Amino acid sequence: MTTLGDSFHVYDTTLRDGAQREGISYSVTDKLAVARLLDGLGVGFIEGGWPGALPKDTEFFARAAAGDLTLKHAQLVAFGATRKAGVRVDQDPQVRALLDSQAPVVTLVAKADRRHVERALRTDVAENRAMVRDTVRFLVDEGRRVFLDAEHFFDGFAFDPDTALRTLESAVEGGADVVVLCDTNGGQLPLGLAETVSDVVARTGFRVGIHCQDDTSCAVANTVAAVQAGATHVQCTANGYGERAGNADLFAVVGNLVTKLGLPVLPPESLAELTRVSHALAEIANIAPDTHQAYVGSSAFAHKAGLHASAIKVDPELYNHIDPDTVGNDMRVLVTEMAGRASLELKGREFGIDLARRPEALTSAVRRVKELEAGGWSFEAADASLELLLKDQLSELDSPPFALESYRVVLDHTHDGTIVSEATVKVHVAGERVIATAEGNGPVHALDAALRKALLPHLSWLDSVQLNDYKVRILNRPHRAAEHGTDAVTRVLVESTDGEREWTTVGVHGNIVEASWLALCDALAHKASRVTPSRA
Amino acid sequence: MTTLGDSFHVYDTTLRDGAQREGISYSVTDKLAVARLLDGLGVGFIEGGWPGALPKDTEFFARAAAGDLTLKHAQLVAFGATRKAGVRVDQDPQVRALLDSQAPVVTLVAKADRRHVERALRTDVAENRAMVRDTVRFLVDEGRRVFLDAEHFFDGFAFDPDTALRTLESAVEGGADVVVLCDTNGGQLPLGLAETVSDVVARTGFRVGIHCQDDTSCAVANTVAAVQAGATHVQCTANGYGERAGNADLFAVVGNLVTKLGLPVLPPESLAELTRVSHALAEIANIAPDTHQAYVGSSAFAHKAGLHASAIKVDPELYNHIDPDTVGNDMRVLVTEMAGRASLELKGREFGIDLARRPEALTSAVRRVKELEAGGWSFEAADASLELLLKDQLSELDSPPFALESYRVVLDHTHDGTIVSEATVKVHVAGERVIATAEGNGPVHALDAALRKALLPHLSWLDSVQLNDYKVRILNRPHRAAEHGTDAVTRVLVESTDGEREWTTVGVHGNIVEASWLALCDALAHKASRVTPSRA
Repeated sequence: MTTLGDSFHVYDTTLRDGAQREGISYSVTDKLAVARLLDGLGVGFIEGGWPGALPKDTEFFARAAAGDLTLKHAQLVAFGATRKAGVRVDQDPQVRALLDSQAPVVTLVAKADRRHVERALRTDVAENRAMVRDTVRFLVDEGRRVFLDAEHFFDGFAFDPDTALRTLESAVEGGADVVVLCDTNGGQLPLGLAETVSDVVARTGFRVGIHCQDDTSCAVANTVAAVQAGATHVQCTANGYGERAGNADLFAVVGNLVTKLGLPVLPPESLAELTRVSHALAEIANIAPDTHQAYVGSSAFAHKAGLHASAIKVDPELYNHIDPDTVGNDMRVLVTEMAGRASLELKGREFGIDLARRPEALTSAVRRVKELEAGGWSFEAADASLELLLKDQLSELDSPPFALESYRVVLDHTHDGTIVSEATVKVHVAGERVIATAEGNGPVHALDAALRKALLPHLSWLDSVQLNDYKVRILNRPHRAAEHGTDAVTRVLVESTDGEREWTTVGVHGNIVEASWLALCDALAHKASRVTPSRA
Repeated sequence: MTTLGDSFHVYDTTLRDGAQREGISYSVTDKLAVARLLDGLGVGFIEGGWPGALPKDTEFFARAAAGDLTLKHAQLVAFGATRKAGVRVDQDPQVRALLDSQAPVVTLVAKADRRHVERALRTDVAENRAMVRDTVRFLVDEGRRVFLDAEHFFDGFAFDPDTALRTLESAVEGGADVVVLCDTNGGQLPLGLAETVSDVVARTGFRVGIHCQDDTSCAVANTVAAVQAGATHVQCTANGYGERAGNADLFAVVGNLVTKLGLPVLPPESLAELTRVSHALAEIANIAPDTHQAYVGSSAFAHKAGLHASAIKVDPELYNHIDPDTVGNDMRVLVTEMAGRASLELKGREFGIDLARRPEALTSAVRRVKELEAGGWSFEAADASLELLLKDQLSELDSPPFALESYRVVLDHTHDGTIVSEATVKVHVAGERVIATAEGNGPVHALDAALRKALLPHLSWLDSVQLNDYKVRILNRPHRAAEHGTDAVTRVLVESTDGEREWTTVGVHGNIVEASWLALCDALAHKASRVTPSRA
């Protein structure tokens, strides 16, 4: 519990509204893992799904109730609709499913826009009010805490304020203790939304929550503006996952509320966990993390150093809006064509290399980086290759884990249309000469497979290393019209993982296969430098 | 020019501040292409770079001045710093480089935060003011229009309002006609930022602009709030590219200003181009488009069909904040078929193909495009391949200029470090079976060379055809953790020229060489379709 207790709610709907994002499909096990991570962060409420409507959600609540989910901070919330028009609440199976879920809290969604009542529900405003009041009261009488999600509230309020406000009133009459104003189609902007929230709070005195979608790219801003206007309950999703453009990102909302508005909405120790939890949730959702996400993205505190590198070194707080450590993130300085001594020295510090005390090595490292960058290399996304380069300049590098004698890759598009890629490598490793051949989906895959086959018997740590991602950039030639496009220089980035860490390496060459080979070799050399220090 | 004329500025800094994004590295050719797309959209100002500081930017302005860039709407802007402390403005080489760029507009960056003046510039407030005033006046006297970017304005204003305001005053004294308040570290929230903008406008009466970074995930909201508070000049970048978390996204800002605030900040016909231009700029930056981007993302109007499917079909306006057609986007769920038909029919018209009169061919073309797109193909940047596909559906295509029997590519990295790429093709052309072998810098170059060698004696028009550009994008695999990165699907774009026209073709395959081969074949087939109609 935060110092704010029940007076402010951080309400997460990653598992329900967030799961509407195109491409997300959680298993029940995934859902349990997501809930544990969110609970560890200290959110107040975790909306687990819509029991009765989606079988996986029904099962999630059943497993939670059976003891598969023990929550330390959060309360579990079941989401569902009010009773159907013309049906008795105790005979509506969907309402029954909400009770059966055994969740202590229920959030009911209701129409706050008269046009939706009439055109989508095909009923009238009076029956809509009765549906809200009956369903809330039924669940409250059964011992549940009930919140109301007032769908399309802002459009509805602009169109017909009376119907919108009376929807809220019906819920409170039934016993709901928070009415959540939803910008369901995401069309609001902060100044107007804040005005409406203030107006509703002033007119009704109800406890008001906020739920924003990101269709104007303002979901986070709208959520924060609503809090400034009097909302004390914010509905968010991890990383802003959600339908269409998504929802308000939990991490940015919390970051803003805590560091900008000084509201301790999470337990104090949780803030430094934001970056880790954001990435872990992306992993479960099987979505590559957004490197440029506010607060938690790997680039959120990355500076292309250039002219200001020396100033950043002296006064980082002049250039970052917060100390990245606060949210468990790191400041990074990108090495670019403007690289100078100051930025390389800073990078060295990130790697635990003190270049300030080795000015001659720093000079030669700067020269080497500039030469390579002029040839198309770029280290800004390839820290692992840069670390190897700096250690090499300091002669602190172990000899590489293997030596190449030669490789050959053969690609055949045969007369029957079959395409075969085959690679043979000849390498020297652990005192032996090894020859291995393997096939792959393409030339690089075949080469990687052959190299693994050759090395694995001698380098057991290789087993854990996998390629995670592979990027190719063709760099334009200086004189465009004079030559063929395929003469260009190719830059390859390889992201590797050993299951615990990820690292990126770079290779550049006129030949894409050789460029890939260089990046693959750096990837293995980086891992070797981590596993063999004792042998150095 | 918009109906707002000079009274409102849409100022794009994709090529300068946007290029600070990690991973972006534009060639000069790329920069020219970006500028043309932005100009086509009708933005008022295009900040092209920092001449004198970055050699590529200097070259960009030189080529623009030499006639390689003809702008219909926009004015080109050179960005740079004020003169150095203690240096005469006419003797500062960086200021001289701004003049030499021949850009009609110059934006100068200056420190508005006293701490930055003292700790980063290591000078005092009086000299800082003189630096601003002298440099602006010098450039204005030379006939340039000058804007001032007041760096770290909001933090500076909070810390010491007097210094911040006097920086603006110095610029206006020198002749600057817009002072741009920059949230350089991106820490602002909309309500507070709007208050400061109002305050500055009220106190100074100056024409105020806004420049926001996205570190609180509020850059778009802050920019729009600033306009509501009196700013009449917005600095944005395409897709929000920029350092750290990025800048305010041009497309969301424009979408909000036009559709939410009713400000016609772009020519009326441009709004429907937002989606296309956004994707084209992502292609040039070689960054996968953000599918969930507001307004222009491919998921921005995608609804997971579910309980509301029928209501969405009847009343889409109840569920979307705007009509997706407004910004050239599509609603997806149920009506993609319709949208697909309409856009393919339009594309057909561009190629001189009347699909409206061939509804069954249109249906099969839509189906074929959808199948291919599901497999990773994308025709957005490959009109020539799409034209071939449509003509094929209409059975209007000549037989291809040659038929492949087989190819083989061999890559050798030999024991002495030599790297050789060699390709052999066996093709049937003009009734003959031809075998040819050639070497190249890489596998694709070798394949292209061998194919030319085989075909040239039979197809004389091939002599004029050259590859102009070659781009590779690795598409994410569906199951990220389960497989190797090199298993991904590869999409290749090939731009060709015959000295008069340029055309782009696409190929997709698990094997990069085969993907390239498919794009190469389309490139030749396209040219063949232009030279041989009489033989059809």
